[in-house]
Amino acid sequence: MKLYRKAILPLGFKASGISSGVKKSGKLDLALFYSDIPAKAACEFTTNKIQAAPIQLDKIHLKKSKSFQAIIVNSGNANCFTGKSGLRDSIETAQALAKTLSISKENVLVASTGIIGRKLPLLKIKRAIPELVQRLSKGGINKAKVAIMTTDTFSKEMTLEFNLGRRRVRICGIAKGVGMIAPSLASPRQHRGATLLVFIFTDALISQQALNKALKVCVDNSFNCITVDGCMSTNDSVIMLANGQAQNVPIKNQGGSFNTFAKALQIVCRELAKMIIQDAEGASKFIRIRVNKAKSFTQAIQVAKAVANSNLFKTAIYGENHNFGRIVASIGASGIDVKEEEIKIRVSPLKKKEIKVEVFLNQGDGSATVYTSDLTPEYIKINAEYN
Amino acid sequence: MKLYRKAILPLGFKASGISSGVKKSGKLDLALFYSDIPAKAACEFTTNKIQAAPIQLDKIHLKKSKSFQAIIVNSGNANCFTGKSGLRDSIETAQALAKTLSISKENVLVASTGIIGRKLPLLKIKRAIPELVQRLSKGGINKAKVAIMTTDTFSKEMTLEFNLGRRRVRICGIAKGVGMIAPSLASPRQHRGATLLVFIFTDALISQQALNKALKVCVDNSFNCITVDGCMSTNDSVIMLANGQAQNVPIKNQGGSFNTFAKALQIVCRELAKMIIQDAEGASKFIRIRVNKAKSFTQAIQVAKAVANSNLFKTAIYGENHNFGRIVASIGASGIDVKEEEIKIRVSPLKKKEIKVEVFLNQGDGSATVYTSDLTPEYIKINAEYN
Repeated sequence: MKLYRKAILPLGFKASGISSGVKKSGKLDLALFYSDIPAKAACEFTTNKIQAAPIQLDKIHLKKSKSFQAIIVNSGNANCFTGKSGLRDSIETAQALAKTLSISKENVLVASTGIIGRKLPLLKIKRAIPELVQRLSKGGINKAKVAIMTTDTFSKEMTLEFNLGRRRVRICGIAKGVGMIAPSLASPRQHRGATLLVFIFTDALISQQALNKALKVCVDNSFNCITVDGCMSTNDSVIMLANGQAQNVPIKNQGGSFNTFAKALQIVCRELAKMIIQDAEGASKFIRIRVNKAKSFTQAIQVAKAVANSNLFKTAIYGENHNFGRIVASIGASGIDVKEEEIKIRVSPLKKKEIKVEVFLNQGDGSATVYTSDLTPEYIKINAEYN
Repeated sequence: MKLYRKAILPLGFKASGISSGVKKSGKLDLALFYSDIPAKAACEFTTNKIQAAPIQLDKIHLKKSKSFQAIIVNSGNANCFTGKSGLRDSIETAQALAKTLSISKENVLVASTGIIGRKLPLLKIKRAIPELVQRLSKGGINKAKVAIMTTDTFSKEMTLEFNLGRRRVRICGIAKGVGMIAPSLASPRQHRGATLLVFIFTDALISQQALNKALKVCVDNSFNCITVDGCMSTNDSVIMLANGQAQNVPIKNQGGSFNTFAKALQIVCRELAKMIIQDAEGASKFIRIRVNKAKSFTQAIQVAKAVANSNLFKTAIYGENHNFGRIVASIGASGIDVKEEEIKIRVSPLKKKEIKVEVFLNQGDGSATVYTSDLTPEYIKINAEYN
């Protein structure tokens, strides 16, 4: 298994990124990801009850179509809380792209990130589509990965290569997101529902069921285990395309090749999730919270997130202030039935950039790790001004 | 009904406040409240699963005894997460006070606020008790109200006088709390569970049942409707004593005099709750969030608290940044099933100190108001350094 800390598109994928004018700054704001042949898709979307128009549209397309060829993404405008006209804007975006690419509109997926509640500048996007398509290339990923960013200070990217039989398979993932990060993602089929956008491309040949299963498990153990500010977005989307171009023996729902694939995907998802925390808005610390000996994984996660989302804990870490009482209070407020006398807490030295908090509940065998950042004056500055 | 913005003890009550040395600064840190005759007590404590030793002890005393004469309160040390030895320290505090006052130890209630997880300096407290008792007086309330404070910048106090028949009744309340404020209080009998400390004294003659009922309703509509930082404390306590010295016709569980009493108590609780938000750590804004037309009061509160606890909303208000999308995202993340097209949001001008947010859900007749503060660099400074 070979790991690259950059995005290298798998066989049969191209990408592009341009400035369409959605961002007034003139920065890159429109990205396209394209597979030469129809690909299978697996998606996990926010469980926020208010879902952005692009997610509403993707859910419709995922019901209607079994294969996908393109994902168009804008940054700067979330196209959320924009009502029926917002949904129409997403539909028209997909239609215009489909027409230019000569594919069916149901084979297009869309995603948006940015300010909530403002009308999408549809005309700017439509006008930019021809150039966006024209610029598609292998190397275009390097502009695409920047075009999806908002307040990110670096692009999050990761590629893994591994062998399945005699074939080399690649999984490439890119992500954006530094604030409004507390994802609770679920596949649309489950009707469970930050702004976190993640796009993962693989040339592996894999069954739809296996792809869904692998992505769900990997997201639950990566993006669903991070929090910057406890604020779940309306736009969080993880979209994965698998186009089969590696021509490996098809990966089924279980077995050796599934395990190899899922393990690789898990590494990509986990590393991208950690990069999001490394770039968390205003953060000065990278914090790993491990809860051990909970009754279950679910309870362990609930306790770890209660600590991770405690403003008092986060400010204490920022201040390098060994106030472990705030950890205690947040554990007790988590909703899990804990016993004071059974709780053990270990915190690594606070002067370092990476902090490790370990909680032992002595109730069972469940354990979980959550990644988070500290709460700093810089976080407030960024978000007081973001507009 | 006559309202005083200061604490004036009702008939038969005395108080005192001194420096015992629990706070290293030498500031006032030990308070005593005393009723000349045994009084009825009603209490609401935090629902945090980890409860400070003084709360554990109070619950024992509330089971054993039907009348109370003294409340001893220290600030600077929460006596929480201190195990069996912490509970022994609270017991010994109550015992030492009871002995000095020549009352039964079960007639004493205790409360603590401050750092969690440090051993209570019991000897300092025991040594200070004789002087504390000696200084008991009507005017002692002015030192007592300061002795309960931690990072508070002003004392929260309120007195109401009103007539019941021919008798004048007084309700006097004092409170402390500016951070780790997200109370979820309940009476111990219900086995539901910031550091918020509130002490309320009345000379009304009232049945135990009526006292419990009035306090529960008033707390649910006041202290349980405020949040500074979403961090529920292990030490939140509202303790009310009623000594009957007004000699009014006893207040029963319902009827005109109950309504008059409950209405007065509601004003005291609500005003104290609002003062806590006015003094919220680092706050530059006082925010009132009103949710209308929810399915129920419970759902309205849940939505209002989701908005109030959103760091992104709070920083936007600090920045006077009209980012109402963050309100939308937090409503959708509240867990309540809402429909985008039915939500209306109104926000008052952001330049003012007092901000009013109104949310309309168009789902029913439930409504609720939650008070909160903005999130500022000053909040972080205070809490990064608090030790």
